[in-house]
Amino acid sequence: MKTDDVLDAFAAGKISKEEVKRVLLGNTFVDAGCAKVDHCREYRTGGPEVVYCEGKTPEQVAVIMSEIVKCSGRALGTRATQAHFNALPAECGAEYDPVSRLIIVDGPERPAIGKIAVVSAGTSDLPVAEEAAKTAEFLGSRVERHYDCGVAGIHRLFSVMDEIIDASAIIAVAGMEGALPSVLGGMAVPPVIGVPTSVGYGANFQGLSALLAMMNSCAPGVGVVNIDNGFGAAFLAHKINLKR
Amino acid sequence: MKTDDVLDAFAAGKISKEEVKRVLLGNTFVDAGCAKVDHCREYRTGGPEVVYCEGKTPEQVAVIMSEIVKCSGRALGTRATQAHFNALPAECGAEYDPVSRLIIVDGPERPAIGKIAVVSAGTSDLPVAEEAAKTAEFLGSRVERHYDCGVAGIHRLFSVMDEIIDASAIIAVAGMEGALPSVLGGMAVPPVIGVPTSVGYGANFQGLSALLAMMNSCAPGVGVVNIDNGFGAAFLAHKINLKR
Amino acid sequence: MKTDDVLDAFAAGKISKEEVKRVLLGNTFVDAGCAKVDHCREYRTGGPEVVYCEGKTPEQVAVIMSEIVKCSGRALGTRATQAHFNALPAECGAEYDPVSRLIIVDGPERPAIGKIAVVSAGTSDLPVAEEAAKTAEFLGSRVERHYDCGVAGIHRLFSVMDEIIDASAIIAVAGMEGALPSVLGGMAVPPVIGVPTSVGYGANFQGLSALLAMMNSCAPGVGVVNIDNGFGAAFLAHKINLKR
Amino acid sequence: MKTDDVLDAFAAGKISKEEVKRVLLGNTFVDAGCAKVDHCREYRTGGPEVVYCEGKTPEQVAVIMSEIVKCSGRALGTRATQAHFNALPAECGAEYDPVSRLIIVDGPERPAIGKIAVVSAGTSDLPVAEEAAKTAEFLGSRVERHYDCGVAGIHRLFSVMDEIIDASAIIAVAGMEGALPSVLGGMAVPPVIGVPTSVGYGANFQGLSALLAMMNSCAPGVGVVNIDNGFGAAFLAHKINLKR
Amino acid sequence: MKTDDVLDAFAAGKISKEEVKRVLLGNTFVDAGCAKVDHCREYRTGGPEVVYCEGKTPEQVAVIMSEIVKCSGRALGTRATQAHFNALPAECGAEYDPVSRLIIVDGPERPAIGKIAVVSAGTSDLPVAEEAAKTAEFLGSRVERHYDCGVAGIHRLFSVMDEIIDASAIIAVAGMEGALPSVLGGMAVPPVIGVPTSVGYGANFQGLSALLAMMNSCAPGVGVVNIDNGFGAAFLAHKINLKR
Amino acid sequence: MKTDDVLDAFAAGKISKEEVKRVLLGNTFVDAGCAKVDHCREYRTGGPEVVYCEGKTPEQVAVIMSEIVKCSGRALGTRATQAHFNALPAECGAEYDPVSRLIIVDGPERPAIGKIAVVSAGTSDLPVAEEAAKTAEFLGSRVERHYDCGVAGIHRLFSVMDEIIDASAIIAVAGMEGALPSVLGGMAVPPVIGVPTSVGYGANFQGLSALLAMMNSCAPGVGVVNIDNGFGAAFLAHKINLKR
Amino acid sequence: MKTDDVLDAFAAGKISKEEVKRVLLGNTFVDAGCAKVDHCREYRTGGPEVVYCEGKTPEQVAVIMSEIVKCSGRALGTRATQAHFNALPAECGAEYDPVSRLIIVDGPERPAIGKIAVVSAGTSDLPVAEEAAKTAEFLGSRVERHYDCGVAGIHRLFSVMDEIIDASAIIAVAGMEGALPSVLGGMAVPPVIGVPTSVGYGANFQGLSALLAMMNSCAPGVGVVNIDNGFGAAFLAHKINLKR
Amino acid sequence: MKTDDVLDAFAAGKISKEEVKRVLLGNTFVDAGCAKVDHCREYRTGGPEVVYCEGKTPEQVAVIMSEIVKCSGRALGTRATQAHFNALPAECGAEYDPVSRLIIVDGPERPAIGKIAVVSAGTSDLPVAEEAAKTAEFLGSRVERHYDCGVAGIHRLFSVMDEIIDASAIIAVAGMEGALPSVLGGMAVPPVIGVPTSVGYGANFQGLSALLAMMNSCAPGVGVVNIDNGFGAAFLAHKINLKR
Repeated sequence: MKTDDVLDAFAAGKISKEEVKRVLLGNTFVDAGCAKVDHCREYRTGGPEVVYCEGKTPEQVAVIMSEIVKCSGRALGTRATQAHFNALPAECGAEYDPVSRLIIVDGPERPAIGKIAVVSAGTSDLPVAEEAAKTAEFLGSRVERHYDCGVAGIHRLFSVMDEIIDASAIIAVAGMEGALPSVLGGMAVPPVIGVPTSVGYGANFQGLSALLAMMNSCAPGVGVVNIDNGFGAAFLAHKINLKR
Repeated sequence: MKTDDVLDAFAAGKISKEEVKRVLLGNTFVDAGCAKVDHCREYRTGGPEVVYCEGKTPEQVAVIMSEIVKCSGRALGTRATQAHFNALPAECGAEYDPVSRLIIVDGPERPAIGKIAVVSAGTSDLPVAEEAAKTAEFLGSRVERHYDCGVAGIHRLFSVMDEIIDASAIIAVAGMEGALPSVLGGMAVPPVIGVPTSVGYGANFQGLSALLAMMNSCAPGVGVVNIDNGFGAAFLAHKINLKR
Repeated sequence: MKTDDVLDAFAAGKISKEEVKRVLLGNTFVDAGCAKVDHCREYRTGGPEVVYCEGKTPEQVAVIMSEIVKCSGRALGTRATQAHFNALPAECGAEYDPVSRLIIVDGPERPAIGKIAVVSAGTSDLPVAEEAAKTAEFLGSRVERHYDCGVAGIHRLFSVMDEIIDASAIIAVAGMEGALPSVLGGMAVPPVIGVPTSVGYGANFQGLSALLAMMNSCAPGVGVVNIDNGFGAAFLAHKINLKR
Repeated sequence: MKTDDVLDAFAAGKISKEEVKRVLLGNTFVDAGCAKVDHCREYRTGGPEVVYCEGKTPEQVAVIMSEIVKCSGRALGTRATQAHFNALPAECGAEYDPVSRLIIVDGPERPAIGKIAVVSAGTSDLPVAEEAAKTAEFLGSRVERHYDCGVAGIHRLFSVMDEIIDASAIIAVAGMEGALPSVLGGMAVPPVIGVPTSVGYGANFQGLSALLAMMNSCAPGVGVVNIDNGFGAAFLAHKINLKR
Repeated sequence: MKTDDVLDAFAAGKISKEEVKRVLLGNTFVDAGCAKVDHCREYRTGGPEVVYCEGKTPEQVAVIMSEIVKCSGRALGTRATQAHFNALPAECGAEYDPVSRLIIVDGPERPAIGKIAVVSAGTSDLPVAEEAAKTAEFLGSRVERHYDCGVAGIHRLFSVMDEIIDASAIIAVAGMEGALPSVLGGMAVPPVIGVPTSVGYGANFQGLSALLAMMNSCAPGVGVVNIDNGFGAAFLAHKINLKR
Repeated sequence: MKTDDVLDAFAAGKISKEEVKRVLLGNTFVDAGCAKVDHCREYRTGGPEVVYCEGKTPEQVAVIMSEIVKCSGRALGTRATQAHFNALPAECGAEYDPVSRLIIVDGPERPAIGKIAVVSAGTSDLPVAEEAAKTAEFLGSRVERHYDCGVAGIHRLFSVMDEIIDASAIIAVAGMEGALPSVLGGMAVPPVIGVPTSVGYGANFQGLSALLAMMNSCAPGVGVVNIDNGFGAAFLAHKINLKR
Repeated sequence: MKTDDVLDAFAAGKISKEEVKRVLLGNTFVDAGCAKVDHCREYRTGGPEVVYCEGKTPEQVAVIMSEIVKCSGRALGTRATQAHFNALPAECGAEYDPVSRLIIVDGPERPAIGKIAVVSAGTSDLPVAEEAAKTAEFLGSRVERHYDCGVAGIHRLFSVMDEIIDASAIIAVAGMEGALPSVLGGMAVPPVIGVPTSVGYGANFQGLSALLAMMNSCAPGVGVVNIDNGFGAAFLAHKINLKR
Repeated sequence: MKTDDVLDAFAAGKISKEEVKRVLLGNTFVDAGCAKVDHCREYRTGGPEVVYCEGKTPEQVAVIMSEIVKCSGRALGTRATQAHFNALPAECGAEYDPVSRLIIVDGPERPAIGKIAVVSAGTSDLPVAEEAAKTAEFLGSRVERHYDCGVAGIHRLFSVMDEIIDASAIIAVAGMEGALPSVLGGMAVPPVIGVPTSVGYGANFQGLSALLAMMNSCAPGVGVVNIDNGFGAAFLAHKINLKR
């Protein structure tokens, strides 16, 4: 609804003052004490509010996720530990995946839409790739995984190319020299989302080498998210997939 | 065409050996001496080969762009100087835009598709924003520009929000603290592509501050391209727009 | 007292040689062995000597804080562990807050002055925000807390704006892209003190992204303190508040 | 005016729809083509919109500053070149100071308020110190300058201490090791704003050494602005001074 | 000759004291005033002394290269400008290549040995690739050039693979994401020497991205030299080629 | 076999479609679930596939190494922990060296070829030097070790010089200021491979100082691998040694 | 003895071949397996070989220190843990100081020479300051300690100035903004050796801020050693003190 | 004179109030408008006030140097351009050296004291070495120059060792990998002052590689000054030399 329409409706007595404030100023969150839980974020941004668990106490996570579940019936927590999971009340129906470190409260089954290809360079990149894949599935996208396809044995990548090229978006997960998105960007039409990982050592500087490489990709059409940020890549890919 | 089909066709004498090599190994470029010009890149990646002019001599740019125009009837050169432009043969029909530093050889008019919103933070970001906007238009997307909407006066952004939210993709161009993509990512459904610019001084470190800020956006769904890389953002946005 | 007056008074025999040295050369500390405790710092700088506990042994902290309490009746220790607290003699009457990691020996109640608004971006920034809030209260300022107001859901910030704009100073605590001070600086008259936090991961580089973003704020009127330095922000805000 | 009051007034027909939008959504800027000029910024943030000239063409600066002068009768341009100044229409009545690189369009004389002390470490820091001093004067504060007081000859600082300690705020400008704010912070009650400068060479890294030093000041109560950002320091100091 | 043998020969009067000092202590240079020219370096290190011209005056370069030519009949100057070249006496018989910035004084023709493959990613990398190729030829190696084979169109690389795999060493020159050495290292037996170039912009940081990428290559068998250091790569490749 | 020959043979029915795909597209790996094990890598790159254990679970390492042993009879795991080793089935016949952190499954004895000299600067560099030495031995090279030869006592290096100068390649392992490769490069004909180590503290920045020093060696002919990457250095040295 | 004299003496049969090698080539070390212990280092460099224990096993430290004690009767180990100390044989007569982390095997008492002033900024810098002080005493210098004299309370420094100004060298130990050496360098004649410490947090970056500040000291006459390197500062100060 | 004695003398009427202020508070400078010229610095710090010309206008330099000459009869300006020199009044009797970029106003001849050895690695380091050498001579030390002695041909260094080892201090000037101070520190008793230079390119990062290498020298007894800071090294060396 456009701003003018809202004010007209209010002047005409059709909507309340609270409604005006909710729509125009976004007063849609619930104050859960340590956090303000935003019940309209999915409507506004295409995805629900997700709880970044790192740096929060288990108790805080429990309060916030319960509030979200109460409202949406579904919830996602990232960078979670077993302790965060344990603090959740059983009635949440949450599940914890130690590889991707996700807490998932899934709602009723929905048909997955479109296709997102998650391609990773090496086995050590698996936790980040799984964070991406499981997040995208939680959000409602169909996901295909192609792991251990790094450029040191580039034929492995070619062998899966047929299945990648018709995805809505490609998530390319790589550490070390982070060359995977460049090679994919030069071979495939779908937009490529690069996820640098902190896999490697020494002059890798916790993922900086892969990050810089992806930022400087000679193949255009590559967008980059933060180091080890599988979640962010999935969120972006899902937004793109929504458009298909 | 799948690999098996190609080989079967070859065994059956339906296609030549050269055709097999072209399809399977991608032998589709023309060697222009200083460069190997790739005539199938658009087919393969969704966009044509684009000439990055920086670091190339005017003569090299002239040779390469002429070769591309000969094949595709259209061509784009980025980071070009007036000297690069001057070296092009007149029959190319090229135009040079000193703000965006693009050389454009446009082909016959085509209807623009979809919508890409290019939003910039300040007037000083204009050259990068224009590189993005003009590139996207060259690729075939419809573009809407919303300039000078930085977060220091955030109401300016709100006033254009109505027009932004139904784009296929949002390109957010910002220097200094680079907060624009985060704010947009929290308010709009379309995928956001952040372009950090080198606008600022001191601890800006030629765009590093904006780059890091965008990589660390607290709003998910933001992909980042290189500093001042309006071209790359447009290429990615166009790929996403193609899907609409 | 001006320098000339001091020397005149001394020449006139009105003050002692020790008094001259105390005033002109600042010889006001007590040597506590491992540290020189400064009994006039509050008089000189507007705030008492505060003990930075990190890197000190519990025994050293106990000696120094006891000396301060003996003189001022009040004391503050920052970055303290439980072990530091345990080493303090019971008669100090100290309290320990594990969230903000402060040891506080509070004196007789005093009326709080003015108003400092402490605004934080996310729940994970809470320890730093609390270090700031509790320090400012210890120093004598009245504090209002507004937590979880980050720019990814910027309407949460707007909903508390009415209460922020008449503070003497605003402390804005944020990690990740650190955009909060910029948005506040564009919307409010009070001086804004940015506190970057190390909340985030990857290209956050332990708070560097937020630090650089705040240094490059496009909204003028933002001063920045060290990463996670809630204490320093409170001290500065209190100095400003003293002026009201 | 509080949000509820605005809506009540609107519902009662006392204010227009446009007025509601202006107050609630901040629709107060004028679109000058290349920029959106914000006519209410001073009301909202305590200082007028200031034009950062670097990266803007002289023509853009002329358009924007003229628009501001038309509305406010006064204007300030920072990081300006002679060419920027030359592009301004004569009727603006602007003056250009090549040392501080400021373009100033001053309005009718106003009494200067309070006191801001600008202290600089060396003669080479003078351009930044003058940017700070002249900006603060433009904003309406009274300024006292104390230049060439660096810590390599710390007695020079002591000799001016008497005049510094009763300022509303101290702006401490220093390059190289940037120790000046720490020494001032340990000796004076007023809040200290550190401005690192790019003066120095080698491992100075264009001001990084001074920036880091000031961020890590062992004296609390120091807020830091960007390298060479005399303007930002003045804006912050003026906000503090306003409170006196 | 082993140390013991030298001393025995000296004790036996077979060699002079000067000879002992020359062999044991390496006293083999000629002091040319501003430099000590080393006449035995080729014997000792497998390659002649080469003059790094950057930072030297034309006069210094002329003195040093003349001294080398006098002794060896051949000389190489790197990072040279036209001004350096102009200062050389005509009888040197030097030639200057403005692309590679080399000054070459070539001696009598010698048969080139072995094979070094110089592979570059893009046309903008040509100056560095030519510095490598021409240096290797000067040192006596046979060189094959394969330019514009970057990973954004990886099929271009495959088409030349047949010719690369039997070289003694591969020099891989690439800027931007610097992925070329990794791909080559996974496909070919010869040792790969990566040369990061400063081609690119923004987060390329003058070649840092390519440097880090090559250091972190997931394909083992890649040694890296300094950014833009075609000369160093050629020297190393030639040493390897000598072994064939 | 050249591409044309492969297709001719296929057209002539001499080889199967699978064979064409194996040779032309490199479809030679086995999908082991979490990884794609490449059975032809040694044939293609001169060395076998090696398992980088860091970031992989013991179970993943066990699966991958077993698959490699099954195919090649030999296997190498780097950066392995005792837990990785314990997960291997006993029939692998693996051995674990806690100093170099290598898991080695050695095959039937083979005569070692050539000579690689491994020279290290200090005793603390021993783990990296041993990773290099043992890897080179595993690959089939003969290795000579010269440890504790750093430049702070440069005569120690001279005393072993006689034995170093006829190696096929020199691996120079050093932390701190990383000067060893420069000194060796100026004294010896064989190619020098520098391995910076993270030995040191403070401004060493985990090996960055040694890395930068080696990249900037004033002695040409030095190739550098990643910090602490003894394995990579050995792989490169072995490739060079193969050529002797 | 000059080189010529050595060879003459050898030719004249006055000294043996081994003696020539010892003097000219420095063959003076003992190969202790994991290390080459240098028995003439004190003669050559003014201080004995010192064992850097970090990264060495306790067994290695025991072997090396025993070898040194056997030869010199005295030994020093830095960065040692209790475990390193425990591995030493009792007859060494070693002592361990957990604050400075030094293992000291002191010989017969010698009169201390000259005077070195060790000045530190805060109590948290004490471990580094003690490493410096105890090392200097071990080497034979007389040491005066002045701790907790940081610039946040600069009068504490003035009160000890009288005792500092006649030292042979001043060691200034400081973390955070590292301003102490600059202030000392502007007030005192003796050479100042700055030791940046890693004390601090956030943008301190483990001592980088103090390191850069000291490198950029506006007071000339300051030499800087590595972060936390009290040992190195003491060694340098002792060398200077030897000259008095 | 001790503080107590000063005050006693004042109380006894033996010295004036101004004298007390001069001695106790260091009020010894002359305010030259843009700078405060310190006439007692030599007395206090062992060297005169020196003018750092970079960033100062020619007029400012002229005013300051004239004031110094007036008082001391001698003056030194560093980092000066020809324009700075031209602005000086002829009666100053100044000389300008374009290599070292020093302006020198020398007083009556004095006998040079002691010996400082200035050793440089390459010819490109000459400007920095000369800044050091000429500054030390200006201050009154005798200087010996040994240029082009870098570690790539380490025998060149050995050939001059006999002359270096009895200096009061060694200034070691080197760019690139900056290994010279480490080698010197392992071979010579005098204290070594390392001066990293910005000579080099690529990963040299304007001298950072040499700076870090010198900070991490494995030879103790090395103090480091800023990149290209020949002046600072000379000042420190002269202070050490004064002690001889």
